[in-house]
Amino acid sequence: MKVDGKHYRTVWMEGDSVFMINQNRLPFYFEIKECKTYLESCEAIENMTIRGAPALGVCAAYAMAQAIHENYLGKRSLEFDRYALERIKATRPTARDLFYAVERVYNASRSTTDSEKTAREEAEKYACEIVEMCRKIGENGMRLINSGDSIETHCNAGWLACPDWGTALSPIYSAKMNGKEVFVYVDETRPRGQGARLTAWELKNERIKHKIIPDGASGELMRRGKIQRVIVGADRIARNGDVANKIGTRNLAIVANYHSIPFYVAAPTSTFDLNCEGGEDIPIEERSEEEVLYQTGLNQRGGLEKVFVCNPGSSALNLAFDATPAKLITGLITERGICKANEEDILKLFPEKSLGQK
Amino acid sequence: MKVDGKHYRTVWMEGDSVFMINQNRLPFYFEIKECKTYLESCEAIENMTIRGAPALGVCAAYAMAQAIHENYLGKRSLEFDRYALERIKATRPTARDLFYAVERVYNASRSTTDSEKTAREEAEKYACEIVEMCRKIGENGMRLINSGDSIETHCNAGWLACPDWGTALSPIYSAKMNGKEVFVYVDETRPRGQGARLTAWELKNERIKHKIIPDGASGELMRRGKIQRVIVGADRIARNGDVANKIGTRNLAIVANYHSIPFYVAAPTSTFDLNCEGGEDIPIEERSEEEVLYQTGLNQRGGLEKVFVCNPGSSALNLAFDATPAKLITGLITERGICKANEEDILKLFPEKSLGQK
Repeated sequence: MKVDGKHYRTVWMEGDSVFMINQNRLPFYFEIKECKTYLESCEAIENMTIRGAPALGVCAAYAMAQAIHENYLGKRSLEFDRYALERIKATRPTARDLFYAVERVYNASRSTTDSEKTAREEAEKYACEIVEMCRKIGENGMRLINSGDSIETHCNAGWLACPDWGTALSPIYSAKMNGKEVFVYVDETRPRGQGARLTAWELKNERIKHKIIPDGASGELMRRGKIQRVIVGADRIARNGDVANKIGTRNLAIVANYHSIPFYVAAPTSTFDLNCEGGEDIPIEERSEEEVLYQTGLNQRGGLEKVFVCNPGSSALNLAFDATPAKLITGLITERGICKANEEDILKLFPEKSLGQK
Repeated sequence: MKVDGKHYRTVWMEGDSVFMINQNRLPFYFEIKECKTYLESCEAIENMTIRGAPALGVCAAYAMAQAIHENYLGKRSLEFDRYALERIKATRPTARDLFYAVERVYNASRSTTDSEKTAREEAEKYACEIVEMCRKIGENGMRLINSGDSIETHCNAGWLACPDWGTALSPIYSAKMNGKEVFVYVDETRPRGQGARLTAWELKNERIKHKIIPDGASGELMRRGKIQRVIVGADRIARNGDVANKIGTRNLAIVANYHSIPFYVAAPTSTFDLNCEGGEDIPIEERSEEEVLYQTGLNQRGGLEKVFVCNPGSSALNLAFDATPAKLITGLITERGICKANEEDILKLFPEKSLGQK
């Protein structure tokens, strides 16, 4: 996607550095963060300079390539690569893509003599694959959207969450490009406000009409017939079709189901974890209560300011994700097609795996 | 309830002024606001210095008494009282109590020769009745709470929303006083954060264990079996048992129902509007988008600061309330007892009205 006429991916590698759009500074400042070492890339994942399952996967792949390069510069040690692999995997626990990507780069590097070159090529190949997957998600998902639809989305599953295009927003972008009129209700997505800040920023940038709503407003809007469908992204999809995604997704799915409004999950096949039987098996990250207790925004002097918004002395619980049961999901939109959220239909998306294999 | 050992009601009249705890300054500062004229009291209602259906009713009653007093000071005119009545009713559209209270004081003043004295006595009588109703709501509702329960609540339906005791929180206070162990999950309640700020402040003040959660987190907590029941307040209850309450209540009721968790609404009978057939007939206030786009909190220098938290250039939709259908409500907790949310059972609460009367 473009910012001020220039094409950007959310994260890319240049020289020995990983560069990324700093998502902690958006939407107020558009800044590029450079991570010179794999450890800096790990920290960028941890402090959410970059976020979103597919983008985390690409960043993790680059970080692994960086680590192998750093090892190459120092004295070669198998243990260093192995340690780096585990270090990168320890950054965040929920997104499936991160584990998939880092292991893929690590394994590729093991299979050749020039492990540094191979790792970097594999990471770049992975990034391009994900971008192409996201583009195809848009192409497939667009068919579900009628001109005039109002669509609700949660969190940010746009191009900032992927290196490009997005997952949940990709069908909306494709629909727009194909001349369909779309309106988007953007859940603000407390506590970090990725909807109000990042999704709204993307939609504004792409000139798509939208309004930000509090997370609790979906039911009232659905009662009034204002929402025709819901599309969200995913951090991990289990073999049975259960989905882990940003906290609030489960509520939204239940509320959509109550109003008989179609609820779709858009994700590349790299987000599927066939080793994970169901939602109960997906680890849910608990993050610092500070994300609930404080809010950062632009003060009247034009600077970013962190303010305390809760009762001093009270504590908060900050589950970053939740699990949505397959039965509440109308369909899964992937680069390989749209399928129902059940084991049988999901396995058909993976013809390369023999059926029944776990 | 007590603050630093001193007993307070949320709003009271002294001399010719209405005094109230300034809820726009809580939880950071505990300040009393004095409204010297009925118009100042109207503005305090509009800018939410005071809020919560029962407290709005009491404040409106006092404002009416103030207006009649002001009329008495000037040249007496029936039109002035009539205008003041309409002015007070125009402050906020959703809460039933406000209309009920202001009309009651107005009508009482019409029936005597000393309308000023009568109005003031009627307003004070109304305030005392509401406090007693809220105390009884606690007594009745407490029976639904088992020691060890975790209860979720939305917005603030505590003593700050009433002159004292509260509605949804009153059973929790009564349970605590009767030696039951209670834990409260407090929805932060975007956009204005009455849960994170006011309910958490009250609970901390009363030494009741609690945690603040984002509004979207209820489903995940219920999935994990962390919540035994939900109790919320109401701004208006229709004849058929549908309830208007703070935006997010409808979602919470749907999510509780999905998890088979009891969902109670606590309110004094003054909140019931038997002329209102169902939820569709309750006017829902839409407030300024600024409440979504900005957040006010304590900055690092200890001052209150308003920061912009959304994407600049995006707009927001701010419905202040929503409607929850009766079928999702396990029971209505009132000062006259607990009843099912249907017309037949609701009318039994009002033996003074002949059955079938509208």
